[in-house]
Amino acid sequence: MLETLREQVCSACHMMYDNGLAAFMWGNISGIDRANSLVVITPKGLALNEITPESLVICDLYGNVAEGDFLPSVDLAAHIALYRAFENIGGVVHTHSKSATVWAQAGRDIPPYGISHADFFKGAIPCTRSLTISEIESEYEETMGRSIVETFLERGLDPDSIPGALVFNHGPFAWGTDCIDALKHAAALETIAELAYRTERINPEIMPINKAILEKQFLK
Amino acid sequence: MLETLREQVCSACHMMYDNGLAAFMWGNISGIDRANSLVVITPKGLALNEITPESLVICDLYGNVAEGDFLPSVDLAAHIALYRAFENIGGVVHTHSKSATVWAQAGRDIPPYGISHADFFKGAIPCTRSLTISEIESEYEETMGRSIVETFLERGLDPDSIPGALVFNHGPFAWGTDCIDALKHAAALETIAELAYRTERINPEIMPINKAILEKQFLK
Amino acid sequence: MLETLREQVCSACHMMYDNGLAAFMWGNISGIDRANSLVVITPKGLALNEITPESLVICDLYGNVAEGDFLPSVDLAAHIALYRAFENIGGVVHTHSKSATVWAQAGRDIPPYGISHADFFKGAIPCTRSLTISEIESEYEETMGRSIVETFLERGLDPDSIPGALVFNHGPFAWGTDCIDALKHAAALETIAELAYRTERINPEIMPINKAILEKQFLK
Amino acid sequence: MLETLREQVCSACHMMYDNGLAAFMWGNISGIDRANSLVVITPKGLALNEITPESLVICDLYGNVAEGDFLPSVDLAAHIALYRAFENIGGVVHTHSKSATVWAQAGRDIPPYGISHADFFKGAIPCTRSLTISEIESEYEETMGRSIVETFLERGLDPDSIPGALVFNHGPFAWGTDCIDALKHAAALETIAELAYRTERINPEIMPINKAILEKQFLK
Repeated sequence: MLETLREQVCSACHMMYDNGLAAFMWGNISGIDRANSLVVITPKGLALNEITPESLVICDLYGNVAEGDFLPSVDLAAHIALYRAFENIGGVVHTHSKSATVWAQAGRDIPPYGISHADFFKGAIPCTRSLTISEIESEYEETMGRSIVETFLERGLDPDSIPGALVFNHGPFAWGTDCIDALKHAAALETIAELAYRTERINPEIMPINKAILEKQFLK
Repeated sequence: MLETLREQVCSACHMMYDNGLAAFMWGNISGIDRANSLVVITPKGLALNEITPESLVICDLYGNVAEGDFLPSVDLAAHIALYRAFENIGGVVHTHSKSATVWAQAGRDIPPYGISHADFFKGAIPCTRSLTISEIESEYEETMGRSIVETFLERGLDPDSIPGALVFNHGPFAWGTDCIDALKHAAALETIAELAYRTERINPEIMPINKAILEKQFLK
Repeated sequence: MLETLREQVCSACHMMYDNGLAAFMWGNISGIDRANSLVVITPKGLALNEITPESLVICDLYGNVAEGDFLPSVDLAAHIALYRAFENIGGVVHTHSKSATVWAQAGRDIPPYGISHADFFKGAIPCTRSLTISEIESEYEETMGRSIVETFLERGLDPDSIPGALVFNHGPFAWGTDCIDALKHAAALETIAELAYRTERINPEIMPINKAILEKQFLK
Repeated sequence: MLETLREQVCSACHMMYDNGLAAFMWGNISGIDRANSLVVITPKGLALNEITPESLVICDLYGNVAEGDFLPSVDLAAHIALYRAFENIGGVVHTHSKSATVWAQAGRDIPPYGISHADFFKGAIPCTRSLTISEIESEYEETMGRSIVETFLERGLDPDSIPGALVFNHGPFAWGTDCIDALKHAAALETIAELAYRTERINPEIMPINKAILEKQFLK
C-alpha cells in the first residue's frame, strides 16, 4: 500500500541522516495519505540510513498498525495528534538536532531575530508548557503531541505559517505540506536556533524584528 | 553577451557553495561590466551549485533584464545600489553565512579585534540602521542597498578599504574589484565575525586594536 | 588468548577514532573476561587507528601483564578500579572528547536537562572531587579510578543506570555491558555535555528535568 | 641545500593545511639547521598546499636570503628572534587557528585548566604585552618575535616546557625540537584554547589546576 508515500518518507529519512539533523538514531518521520487517513511512519529501532520503503509502518489515525513488519516509532501518538489538529499538513519530522534541542531544553520560544527566521516562520517558534506529573506518568507520548496543539490553540498561532514547535525538555517537531517540506522546516529550525543563540550572546538587549518585516518577508 | 563575466560569476557561485558560506539557497552574487553598465547576477530560485553561465541574468543599472531565462535575484536592487554608489567595485556577494549573520541580527558593528581583521578591513565592519515602517512596507529591497550606502556616507567610510557591511536584521554584503575578490571578502568577514564573537566572550572589556596597527597591517 | 574480546576492543578503538571522540591519541578502551578475571586494554603509545587485536595487552586485576608486546595504557589502574567496584560492567572507555572534558575541567556535574540525557543516564553525570596533594604525588593513576568509585558510593549512585562519570581536571570515563556499549555511552555523554552547555547559556535559570520524566524515559 | 630539512618543513605545511589550523593562507612554518645557522621557511604568498620543498626559502639568522626563488614569509623576523633566544628549539609554527587567535585577540594568557593542557604545556600559555605606537610604526614584525622572548624572560618561563605563546592582537606561535614537533604543539594549543574557552563559560569561578598535578602530568 501507499508505494509513493513510502518512497517519499524513505527519501526524507536518508536526507535527514545525511544532513546530520539526527544525533544517534534519535528522529522519526511520517507522511499522511489524507484520502485514506493512513500514516506512513518510521519503525522503532532502525537507524535512519537503514530504512527502506518496505520497513516503514502504516497506521491509521487511532494508532493501529495497518501494515508493517516492525513496531511504529514510539512517537507515533505525537505525529497523529498533529495530523488530527493541523488539517493542512501532510508530513511531520521529529529530530533531536542540537541547536533546536537546546532551546527546547531551556524551555524558551525562539524569538524571530532576522530575515532568516522570517523566511520560514512568521513569528516566534513556540516552546510547549511543562507537563504535569500525572501526564508524564500516564501518557507521556500522547501528551507530547497534544501539548503542541494546545500551545497553538491557546496562543492563536497558525500552524501553516509557523510550521514547527519545541517540546519542552525534549526537542523540535516540524511539519509541512509533505514530509520533504517538513524536513526543510526542521533544517531551517535548526539553523535559526543556532543563529538566535549566538545573536543573544552578542547583544543581550536585542529585540525581535519588527512585525512589518516579519510579515513582508514571510509572504515572499 | 559577457561570456567571461558570466563564467567568473558562475565560478564564484560554485566556490561559495563549496565553502559553506550559503546556508540553504540563501545567497547571491553579481559582477559588473562597467564599460557597458551591465550587471551579471544569479537567478532567483536556483541553488548555487545548479548555476551555469547560461542561467545567469544580465540587467542594466535600472534593474531591467537585458538577457536571461530566469528572473534576477530578489536582491538585485541592493546590488545595483552598491554599484552606483561605490564606483571602484566590480563584484558583490550577499550571503547568510552564520557568524556574520548573527552580528547583523544583533545590530552591531564588528569591532577590529586583531590582525586577522586588519588584513581585510581597515576599521569596524558597519551595521546599518534599522529601517522605518514605511521603508519596509513600500520598498524593502531597494532600501537595503541604500541603507549600506548611507551608512558609508554618514560615517565617512571608504568602501575600498572596508569592503563589506552588515544589513541590520538580515546579513552581510561584501564587495571587491570583481566577484572573486568580493567572495574572498565575504569569507574573511565570516571568519572575522566568528573570532570577534569569541574574543568578547573571553574578555568582555577588550578594546578594538590600536589604529596604528590597523592601518599598518591593512597597507600590507 | 581471548581472541573475541581482543577483536571487540579493537573494533571499539577504530569506531572511537572514526567518530572523533579522541582528540590526538588521548583515549583508551578495555573489555573484561569476568570468568578469567582478565582485562584486554589498549597499549600505551599507539594511536587508536593503528591498533590491531595483537597489539592489545592482557592484564589481570592486580595490574600484571599476562600477555602483550606493549605496555598497557597508563590509565590501566583506573579501568581496574572500575571493574573491581562495578561488578556488572564489561567494558570501559576513557576519552578526552571536548564537550565532556570541559565539564570535567569546570568541576561540575552535568545536570539532566532533557530527554536526550534521560535516554542514557538516569540522573546527573557526576564529577569527582579534587584530589589531595599527597594523592597526586604518590598515586595519581590509581586515585583517579578510585575517586569515581567513591563518588558513586558516597552519593548512593547506581553505576548501571549512570554509566559514566567525569574525573575532575581530567575528562570522562564511560562503561557498559561490553566495550561497544561503553563507547555508546561515551558518545552519548559527549552529546549530552554539549547540549547542557548551550542550554545553560540560553536559560541560566533552567532547572534539571522532573524526576518522573527522567525515570520514565530511562526505563524505555 | 638542506634537502632533508626542506622536505620536513614541506611535510609540516601540508599537515597544517590538512588539519585546518590555517584559515585562508594565514600561517608559516620554519625549521633551523643549527650547525649552519640557516633557517628554511615558507615563502610569502603561496598557499600551504601549494608549497614544494623547492619553493621554500633559506635564510641566515640576520634575515638575508641564502637561497630561494620567492620572498620569505613576512614573519621571518619573528621566527629568527625565537631561534636566537630559545636555543634548544628546531622548528617554529605560526597559525591563525581560531580558538588560539581569540585568546590572543582577547589579550589573555590561557590558564591551565586540566590534564589536556598539562600534557603539553607546564603552565599558562602566555600572551604578550601590547606594543607601543613607535614599535608598531617602525618595526612591527621584529617586535612581534621580540615581545614573545621578553615575555619569557620577564616572567622567568622556560620555552622548553612552555612551547608556545600568543602575540597580543595577532595569534599563536608554537615551537619544538623540529617543525613537526612545533606543529604538534600548535595543534595542542588550539585544542587547549577551545577547552579553556568553554571551561570558563561553564564555571566562571574555576581556578587553574593544582601545580602538583600540572608538574606530575607534564613529566609523563
